[in-house]
Amino acid sequence: MDEQRIRSFFSGDRFAALAGAEIVELKPGYCRCKLEVSEKHLNAVNVVQGGAIFTLADFAFAVASNSHGQLALAINVNISFLAGRSSGTLFAEARELADPNRIGAYEVRVTDDAGALVAQFNGLVYRKNERLWGQAPS
Amino acid sequence: MDEQRIRSFFSGDRFAALAGAEIVELKPGYCRCKLEVSEKHLNAVNVVQGGAIFTLADFAFAVASNSHGQLALAINVNISFLAGRSSGTLFAEARELADPNRIGAYEVRVTDDAGALVAQFNGLVYRKNERLWGQAPS
Amino acid sequence: MDEQRIRSFFSGDRFAALAGAEIVELKPGYCRCKLEVSEKHLNAVNVVQGGAIFTLADFAFAVASNSHGQLALAINVNISFLAGRSSGTLFAEARELADPNRIGAYEVRVTDDAGALVAQFNGLVYRKNERLWGQAPS
Amino acid sequence: MDEQRIRSFFSGDRFAALAGAEIVELKPGYCRCKLEVSEKHLNAVNVVQGGAIFTLADFAFAVASNSHGQLALAINVNISFLAGRSSGTLFAEARELADPNRIGAYEVRVTDDAGALVAQFNGLVYRKNERLWGQAPS
Repeated sequence: MDEQRIRSFFSGDRFAALAGAEIVELKPGYCRCKLEVSEKHLNAVNVVQGGAIFTLADFAFAVASNSHGQLALAINVNISFLAGRSSGTLFAEARELADPNRIGAYEVRVTDDAGALVAQFNGLVYRKNERLWGQAPS
Repeated sequence: MDEQRIRSFFSGDRFAALAGAEIVELKPGYCRCKLEVSEKHLNAVNVVQGGAIFTLADFAFAVASNSHGQLALAINVNISFLAGRSSGTLFAEARELADPNRIGAYEVRVTDDAGALVAQFNGLVYRKNERLWGQAPS
Repeated sequence: MDEQRIRSFFSGDRFAALAGAEIVELKPGYCRCKLEVSEKHLNAVNVVQGGAIFTLADFAFAVASNSHGQLALAINVNISFLAGRSSGTLFAEARELADPNRIGAYEVRVTDDAGALVAQFNGLVYRKNERLWGQAPS
Repeated sequence: MDEQRIRSFFSGDRFAALAGAEIVELKPGYCRCKLEVSEKHLNAVNVVQGGAIFTLADFAFAVASNSHGQLALAINVNISFLAGRSSGTLFAEARELADPNRIGAYEVRVTDDAGALVAQFNGLVYRKNERLWGQAPS
């Protein structure tokens, strides 16, 4: 796994950047991201909008599932919203549930500063026969 | 249903506004929203990020499920991503699958300009014993 | 679509038979099944067990998704249980949400005798490069 | 937690019994069940039917989520089928993801004899203001 290349590749995710999701840690099949909650993330009842939580978790999921360098496209996500938050930092930790196959399964736990579970996210990817980037420059 | 009040209430959803999701049509238990795709919605492989699609659908879901004036909180969403898009307009149409109960079930279909299905979203809410707003001003 | 061949093929589903799920109607991308509720389907609180409802819906999903003659394997299902039933007949109606692709999306609605929604089931299949049966006998 | 009472209560789950799901271990918020695969569990392509896997997992989920003695009804399940099996023993291990609340979140991992992940199941319950049984006889 070429961490710098993956970080560079995912710096191109403009919606994750708009939402303020950032990569904290990255290993093969694993990624931890964070998001500093601010007013722009709030919904009409003043808690972080489901879409902001989803975007954070989905970004961690995308990085973890593409960390092997093979293009992986999200096909399904199930998310349960277990606690509302209005401030602080949210973390999303994505990990692979099984060996990478054509269909890969990942879980992402979204927690707050204190480690309390805010959302549980389970996602599936379909792996294409494509590399994330062309042949490495020599 | 007081449409103006609901529209005004949901104008307070700052993350939906950041993502560019807008209400198009609103009826009891129903909402249609749209999002004009631009570069800010794209991910690292240049298609609309899952979080942007989710935010659009989730906004339609929130408006439809709260349209009865009783506070409804999202507890679970399942979303399948069926086609990628990089431009154009996306629409999300949310409707109630069963009579409103303590647990309400909604479906949201996200389609493109041509009506092709881009994502299928199914969501559940938990209805609280709270109104969305206080007693109406006289 | 060769309806008799599909019916014959799915008569080999022993668990669906054990649960009492039967095919009622079959068209390309579509299947309607039924289950007559009896005591064997009940759980510890005397309503139809989630697994029985799932088996009925999953059988309709399997038949609909394999009705094109290409092997389709279920990869993900999301099911919401919206009403409990203890007797009567349950119906499951499966239909294709989008044109058949490598990843196919289906929805199944489980209803009671009166047409009330008992469960909402959304499923994804992965289509393999295999036919359900060998070359047709001449 | 009164283990004998919970076991006795769940011996009334007739569909779980029909499917052959049995409780192996039980603790507050936790349950491990097993199922010995036999021909009756197979589908038309000779692997364990999705409904049989679901029933096993759902039984572990029901026992774990009701282990506090308060009636918990399943409202949503998301299941991913990650590997097919035609024989052997399947195990389902259910555990609570967060402190018990009105809405409880559980995860169930279904594995084979060798510990390989066969299915990932995530479920939500709604807790009613009812006990599983009346006052204990004196």
